Amino acid sequence: MIDTVRWKQQKKEALLPGKIRLIDQTKLPELYEFIETDDVTEVYHAIKRLSVRGAPAIGIAAAFGLTIAVQNFTSNDKEAFLKELQKHADYLNSSRPTAVNLSWALNRCCQKIIHHSSKQSTVENLKNILIQEALIILEEDIEMCKKIGHYGVSLIKKKNAGILTHCNAGALATGDYGTALSPIYTAQNNGLEPKVFADETRPLLQGARLTAWELQKANIDITVICDNMAAKLMQEKKIDLVITGADRVAANGDSANKIGTYSLAINAKYHNIPFYIAIPYSTIDPSLASGDLIPIEERDSSEITCGFGKKTVPEKVKTYNPAFDVTPASLIKGIITDKGILYPPFKTSIRKIL
Amino acid sequence: MIDTVRWKQQKKEALLPGKIRLIDQTKLPELYEFIETDDVTEVYHAIKRLSVRGAPAIGIAAAFGLTIAVQNFTSNDKEAFLKELQKHADYLNSSRPTAVNLSWALNRCCQKIIHHSSKQSTVENLKNILIQEALIILEEDIEMCKKIGHYGVSLIKKKNAGILTHCNAGALATGDYGTALSPIYTAQNNGLEPKVFADETRPLLQGARLTAWELQKANIDITVICDNMAAKLMQEKKIDLVITGADRVAANGDSANKIGTYSLAINAKYHNIPFYIAIPYSTIDPSLASGDLIPIEERDSSEITCGFGKKTVPEKVKTYNPAFDVTPASLIKGIITDKGILYPPFKTSIRKIL
Repeated sequence: MIDTVRWKQQKKEALLPGKIRLIDQTKLPELYEFIETDDVTEVYHAIKRLSVRGAPAIGIAAAFGLTIAVQNFTSNDKEAFLKELQKHADYLNSSRPTAVNLSWALNRCCQKIIHHSSKQSTVENLKNILIQEALIILEEDIEMCKKIGHYGVSLIKKKNAGILTHCNAGALATGDYGTALSPIYTAQNNGLEPKVFADETRPLLQGARLTAWELQKANIDITVICDNMAAKLMQEKKIDLVITGADRVAANGDSANKIGTYSLAINAKYHNIPFYIAIPYSTIDPSLASGDLIPIEERDSSEITCGFGKKTVPEKVKTYNPAFDVTPASLIKGIITDKGILYPPFKTSIRKIL
Repeated sequence: MIDTVRWKQQKKEALLPGKIRLIDQTKLPELYEFIETDDVTEVYHAIKRLSVRGAPAIGIAAAFGLTIAVQNFTSNDKEAFLKELQKHADYLNSSRPTAVNLSWALNRCCQKIIHHSSKQSTVENLKNILIQEALIILEEDIEMCKKIGHYGVSLIKKKNAGILTHCNAGALATGDYGTALSPIYTAQNNGLEPKVFADETRPLLQGARLTAWELQKANIDITVICDNMAAKLMQEKKIDLVITGADRVAANGDSANKIGTYSLAINAKYHNIPFYIAIPYSTIDPSLASGDLIPIEERDSSEITCGFGKKTVPEKVKTYNPAFDVTPASLIKGIITDKGILYPPFKTSIRKIL
């Protein structure tokens, strides 16, 4: 598969010191290049400008980023180390507001360290526990992808099924096969040859640039459309099911995902086409009762006005650029997770798996 | 207003010979330039590549284009002249398949000439009848725009109403105030200060480039969004009504318009927001019983893969690029025409005004 986010240790015999290595997704599909850094501010900006994106991949990158931030801490003062750790966790956490995996991974690492700091461990021990925890998050993610594929493929009931997806919730958004794309990869491996349609996903075109790129690499039948063409495909009966990822799922099943997902879910409902989301359980935020409590990032207007190097909106014209929208649970047929497929009422089914 | 399509006579004292003058809309908003030509193939290509677009404006351009094609016909042989006329009408008619106004305007001109050719008219007389008919089509269009504005403004029931529109059905699509934008201009003139949202309208961004440009010129409050953000605006209760144009309306009210209109209509229905289309009566094609009979133009994949000068889809990945979709009558609250607002059942209300 594609190594979206990986840890590169500097010496053969030790995990630390190391660097994070990311595919620079802002350059795809034109250039397939990596960012390799041991500077936490570079990791922060890589997340912020979407060089690494997708809720699970952001979580992994943040855990490695946190390791980088403290791996050169020289004192043996554990108190000071914990302060430093929390400072960098807060910093990384401020890079993007919507994906819950970001804070989930950072909290998990911090809790782990706090837990061990009370024991007879040195700062050096704590650093090693941190990188091990980050690597476990990556490994769990790879395992999670496989499980989502395993459960999700049961929904693809025929050969050459038409599957529509939005944005990129594939290998480039995770440690391995992805979330929404994992059932598709699994279907392809099982000989089902799905026919996949990818919304280009304005403004940053993750569908056109990233989903098309990774599915083509895997020899999967892929067609790119503009976001506003999805309803026509449904009208033409070319779509059997829709699968997208999500960045945060509330306790009632309301799901925040890339802007445009909500419209797609409404269109699917109108055409009586099942609409699924695929997520690791870490994307569920049980602290939020419903989707209207999910913070929605608004991004810079230049993504709309000159996203492709050419000015496409007249000077001084206003734009509105929310990066996500919330699809109410009522439009979601099922939530594919690494612990099985959840069905309505989601309040109950979500509570059960947590 | 904006002179989207005009006739420029070469001598003060005579309508002929002349040239057509068009705003080159492919260059907006960066450049505000005109195409001036007396070459019919240039007119054909201007229509085909969307330098002039919008159903009514295409009709006007075609009528002027037909005049240009025959204005230098030198023989006095009326039979030969009629043949030449029909040949060029067929040629211009093949430039784009969906907008009915194109064939409507060309047929109207040809019928007029055929009608007069049986009388004691010379070829020179017929040429003058032709340019006069083309100018009448333009004049009628200007009058049509005013009437659509007059009827349509009655639907804008409060100050600062949020109005969503798609593509461009404004001054740049017609001889004057436009169709969908005419009620908006009229509302602004009446002091209602509407808050307009324009879908950018992928792939060719007529909303971002053209609607934003002309509404900004008129000091109307305009915000550009990506197509996939419309549902979120509706969820946020920022939209009171949706108005779009249409390129062909079937006898039952099914309406073909720019790709993405259908999705918008479904989203409006889901949010219980009234969805209107605004058209001149010449956009109605009574020969087609329903929308599935409307021919839909499929355009080149490069509009999706590198629409902004930068390659955004990997090499060899397939695309699907229908230029229009058909919104079923059941999703349309009313059709604003120059003869009043039509309400369901459209089969009856359309038959009445034709």
